[in-house]
Amino acid sequence: MPVNLRLPEAVSVPGVKASTCAAGIKSNGTDDMVLFALEPGSVTAGVFTQNTFCAAPVTVAKQHLSSQHGQIRALLINSGNANAGTGHDGVTVATEHCAAVANALGCDVEAVLPYSTGVIGEPLPNQLMKDHIPQLVAAATESTAALQQAARGIMTTDTVAKISSKQITIGDQQVTLTGMSKGAGMIEPNMATMLAYVFTDAAIAEKDVNTALKTAVDQSFNAITVDSDTSTNDACMLCATGVGATLAPSSEHWPVFQQALNELMLLLAQAIIRDAEGATKFITVSVEEGASQADCRKVGYAIANSPLVKTAMFASDANVGRLLMAIGKVGLPGLDPYQVTVNINDLPVFDGGQLHPDYTEARGSEVMQATDITVSVNLGMGNERMSVYTSDLSHDYVTINAEYRT
Amino acid sequence: MPVNLRLPEAVSVPGVKASTCAAGIKSNGTDDMVLFALEPGSVTAGVFTQNTFCAAPVTVAKQHLSSQHGQIRALLINSGNANAGTGHDGVTVATEHCAAVANALGCDVEAVLPYSTGVIGEPLPNQLMKDHIPQLVAAATESTAALQQAARGIMTTDTVAKISSKQITIGDQQVTLTGMSKGAGMIEPNMATMLAYVFTDAAIAEKDVNTALKTAVDQSFNAITVDSDTSTNDACMLCATGVGATLAPSSEHWPVFQQALNELMLLLAQAIIRDAEGATKFITVSVEEGASQADCRKVGYAIANSPLVKTAMFASDANVGRLLMAIGKVGLPGLDPYQVTVNINDLPVFDGGQLHPDYTEARGSEVMQATDITVSVNLGMGNERMSVYTSDLSHDYVTINAEYRT
Repeated sequence: MPVNLRLPEAVSVPGVKASTCAAGIKSNGTDDMVLFALEPGSVTAGVFTQNTFCAAPVTVAKQHLSSQHGQIRALLINSGNANAGTGHDGVTVATEHCAAVANALGCDVEAVLPYSTGVIGEPLPNQLMKDHIPQLVAAATESTAALQQAARGIMTTDTVAKISSKQITIGDQQVTLTGMSKGAGMIEPNMATMLAYVFTDAAIAEKDVNTALKTAVDQSFNAITVDSDTSTNDACMLCATGVGATLAPSSEHWPVFQQALNELMLLLAQAIIRDAEGATKFITVSVEEGASQADCRKVGYAIANSPLVKTAMFASDANVGRLLMAIGKVGLPGLDPYQVTVNINDLPVFDGGQLHPDYTEARGSEVMQATDITVSVNLGMGNERMSVYTSDLSHDYVTINAEYRT
Repeated sequence: MPVNLRLPEAVSVPGVKASTCAAGIKSNGTDDMVLFALEPGSVTAGVFTQNTFCAAPVTVAKQHLSSQHGQIRALLINSGNANAGTGHDGVTVATEHCAAVANALGCDVEAVLPYSTGVIGEPLPNQLMKDHIPQLVAAATESTAALQQAARGIMTTDTVAKISSKQITIGDQQVTLTGMSKGAGMIEPNMATMLAYVFTDAAIAEKDVNTALKTAVDQSFNAITVDSDTSTNDACMLCATGVGATLAPSSEHWPVFQQALNELMLLLAQAIIRDAEGATKFITVSVEEGASQADCRKVGYAIANSPLVKTAMFASDANVGRLLMAIGKVGLPGLDPYQVTVNINDLPVFDGGQLHPDYTEARGSEVMQATDITVSVNLGMGNERMSVYTSDLSHDYVTINAEYRT
């Protein structure tokens, strides 16, 4: 059960068609192949995992995206198998699937990007997938229902589909942004996330799609963690179909677009945490008055990734000691413990080198009954701030990961 | 139940007296104060936690050790309360306890070092502890039984006392090394461990005691992790009473002493992992052919701290994908996935960018039935190596840490 997950409803995006099918890669018979077909002239940007053992489709998608300068016509995704740790054969197979899509759609093979998520180390069922590609291409439809089905089709250990939209007005034109994300474990993205796709009908130049994506990712998908583990298959894509209003950073409307994109991507990133493996709490770690944003991020992640903090959260235990331990283990040069304050939601718990004088076990226990918890840390060193989002560490996390074969 | 923990028996050390009592700091009535009294002329070296929120006794012990140039007469330890996050009052109290010991023993206050371990953020029961100090000093005895009782007295979530000895022959003299350690959670020491005390009757100069300690710590207490969390109270001490044979690095016998110390400290560090919170497996991550020892350490800790690797270990799942993910997330410059090999115990599981051709699920499952697991990673980049030791992540780890108030 996701923790307080409420997403605004999704709508379709002019210029984006989607289709799904159950090819049999997943053993439970649910959809495991998804195709997005984009209007000619669409511009796509992406960020990908920095894991050295990145999956074959990541290698292929980066090459294709770069050689096409963002002129992409289709994205092909499979769930149930990560096509990672599969050597040169994995790259060959991913490229063959792109060719099959290109053949059916009538475009260059490099205008197709492949994505995989699921079990690592096993070969993709190559022929099985190839057999389903023509029907996928033929079935692609521009509709809200098709996008919603796609959001379900990319799921692995997720318990719900994560899809949402924002609409803004640019002059007299409406611009739509619709995005989806998947992922529930192996989540500490580094310049990317498990899988996230955001589509807009705006017309935007390649370099500006890149800038908008990177700006939004930095405070959303690069600010979440479930378990500190960076996946081999992370990818986050932004596709602008160009069917609607033209936008550029020089335009007065650009900040409105960037803001809408930031908010949508933050919602989708937080949705991953709210649906994280075994999550019973959604935890925001807000670090303020840091000397740099990098310092704030380090402290935020030290708290968010600490197994002892996460198990205390699971127990609804206002364990101040573990919060201090986690802040202190970063070893920030110049940090003065006597200047640090810590709040849990609205309750001050630590101040002046010791527990806050008004803090009591009873108050700590009361505030921790909430399912949304904000730990606010003031470092007293400067003017920068950064928030990081995480889940707790529960028995269900252990059960899920002791049973699921990544 | 510790995982395959077998320690050679401990013996007493000439020049070291110990005593314990149950002052009532721990609610369960077991021993919670320990005193070690050292022969005049003893030389002590120590390494301490690098956590910025280090506990008051760490601050005091470092000051005293430095101002005395290692000429220490007594170590006072309490369990059940960490005296951390207790502000200036915490430092005052720790110093008062040193003064009480010094008064009873007839030495300088700075010749006494204080240590605490247990709950963070609560004030020490000052008067209660002071009241018990005279009897502790009076009861100190040079015996094996007293050392064994001390090893129990420093325990918190440990399930067994961890104490062992080594004896070596230097010319015609026997030299004894006896050490003890405690700790089962909040364990990723950084230049130190939870608490470890090693005593020897050898006569060694201050700088040489320091060198010997740091050398031994690097491959033992600085190579273990339970949960990636660095405690506020870590300390690892080496005390040489000088009652026995004289030793210096220039002596032909020094390597024998250093080797014995290394082996003893590795045993004690590994004992912490074998008794780690909820541990069902003892895991050695052996990283070979690295470009540097630092690289090997990074890869070792990335695997050892990965919640996904640790839950797979708990499930006896030979999850190669998670091992690759953990190696890859380090982002070692120049690492070529096609050059990396991975073995689990004697079974080759990954080679040439993909699963080893002889690997089968059945073989993986068979090798994972062992309780002692060695993951060997060959990076194919150089000639350095490093081993890191860790435990798995089980339901009991979550239960213990959702219930225990650090």
